[in-house]
Amino acid sequence: MNWQAAIEAAANRISGHVRRTPVADLTLAGHPVTIKLEHMQHTGTFKARGAFNALIQGPVPDGGVVAASGGNHGAAVAYAAAQLGIPAQIFVPEIAGPAKIALIERSGANLTVVPGAYADALDAALAHEARTGAMQVHAYDSPATLAGQGTCLREWEDQGLDADTVLIAVGGGGLLGGSMGWLNGRRRVVAVEPETSCALNAALAAGAPVDVEVSGIAANALGARRIGGLCLGLAQETGAISVLVPDSAIAEAQQVLWREARILVEPAGATALAALLCGAYQPAPGERLAVLLCGANVAPEPV
Amino acid sequence: MNWQAAIEAAANRISGHVRRTPVADLTLAGHPVTIKLEHMQHTGTFKARGAFNALIQGPVPDGGVVAASGGNHGAAVAYAAAQLGIPAQIFVPEIAGPAKIALIERSGANLTVVPGAYADALDAALAHEARTGAMQVHAYDSPATLAGQGTCLREWEDQGLDADTVLIAVGGGGLLGGSMGWLNGRRRVVAVEPETSCALNAALAAGAPVDVEVSGIAANALGARRIGGLCLGLAQETGAISVLVPDSAIAEAQQVLWREARILVEPAGATALAALLCGAYQPAPGERLAVLLCGANVAPEPV
Repeated sequence: MNWQAAIEAAANRISGHVRRTPVADLTLAGHPVTIKLEHMQHTGTFKARGAFNALIQGPVPDGGVVAASGGNHGAAVAYAAAQLGIPAQIFVPEIAGPAKIALIERSGANLTVVPGAYADALDAALAHEARTGAMQVHAYDSPATLAGQGTCLREWEDQGLDADTVLIAVGGGGLLGGSMGWLNGRRRVVAVEPETSCALNAALAAGAPVDVEVSGIAANALGARRIGGLCLGLAQETGAISVLVPDSAIAEAQQVLWREARILVEPAGATALAALLCGAYQPAPGERLAVLLCGANVAPEPV
Repeated sequence: MNWQAAIEAAANRISGHVRRTPVADLTLAGHPVTIKLEHMQHTGTFKARGAFNALIQGPVPDGGVVAASGGNHGAAVAYAAAQLGIPAQIFVPEIAGPAKIALIERSGANLTVVPGAYADALDAALAHEARTGAMQVHAYDSPATLAGQGTCLREWEDQGLDADTVLIAVGGGGLLGGSMGWLNGRRRVVAVEPETSCALNAALAAGAPVDVEVSGIAANALGARRIGGLCLGLAQETGAISVLVPDSAIAEAQQVLWREARILVEPAGATALAALLCGAYQPAPGERLAVLLCGANVAPEPV
């Protein structure tokens, strides 16, 4: 698949629907980094990119769209559907939490909260698709979703990204996959997962997607039980570096972002930075680092 | 006074000590605006600019520096002093609140919390200056402070600011004064104050600085009892527009910034936007608007 062409097409498709999020150069906990504030995207995460790309690309049947989500993808699909006048049914697990659930409710989408984790919500969404013919918008493992998320790195390069290495948090692999698809090995990519939610790391070790247990403070955003096949293939082809971080480092990264730059993100949004703080990724002297801040749907909402 | 030259000199002086804060174009509550995220500055407000300019310009005596502050200026002087290896004594009133007080304490400065409001802290700081010979760093009404704050608008124009009108919150008038000094009438400036803390508005009506009562949710940042004379003179010369907003609009603006863009600011940081939300400033059709987000030292701290 020609990901660059797919991502170019996605960028044209979603232009005017998503924000060009700001970038900044600063030092965090002693590390000079360039950051992209993608948590300022509509609905608080990069996921609006993939959602708009999938829905505009369509074709969307009369039954509308359906999505399963830890919360952030569901909020993005609900928002995009509302903007485009498309009916949406969203399934989230209980662990999505109050902020993400309130966000989806405010969009006007139909929302069903199911017991269990993301995989259980996905089962419910697949059943809904089979029953109604609604278009399934996968949270990470579909070309339309991946290409949409890839527009974030394309935009960052258009903004003059100056970095040897980009650190990106990984759940199911939509953002990472899209980023690798766009970069195509031109920069080093460090894929950062929580120790307790490490679907990519486990798949790279096994040579194929395998199920993992998911838990921890970022589980309602990064808690995919199994990495997407598209992402895994790209990680193997382009040689992404996989590292794991403990929840304590994620919490510390949240504190550093607030205390040093007044940026409030959810645990998943701080996970990439956590790899620098705890030494899970140790840059070479002079290595220029970029850190993608991907989400800010904290609970409780701060105002 | 040639403010442009003073601000150019200040920009050179503080380069490397302050952040170049990011800018973004987005729509907030239906208003297309360009914003500058100056709340991402060191210590969470623009005040680091004036503090570094004053301290580097000096000369600083052996007794170090002293400052009175509602909280934010004190935090900035304490931070700048620590970075430059200068002893600092900070006086704040009780209403500074726990977040601002903790911020100053973390810097290592000597901190004294006095009963009352900002004016009471200023009395204590003046007494300290008389007793010790320490250099007084005024929170807003000194050329060095004003010139430092003016570097924010200079930087924004260097980043390609495209706006007919810039909305800026006003307390004692350091940021507004520096902004007017830099712009020199080249763009419309809207000075936004809380209804319950309106030192500039009252002074413009009276034709001279007058004392006002201060209260409300932004009082620990915007609660100057009397506008600075430098700022008032510039407002009269350049024809700044003065508007007032109720606390309810300030609180709504905080919510809009969080819900629509995941930006968390303190009440003062949302005050400029509040003027658009409540109609205190009504732009003409097609008028291009810029909103300066100036502070984010919310209490309690969110992480």
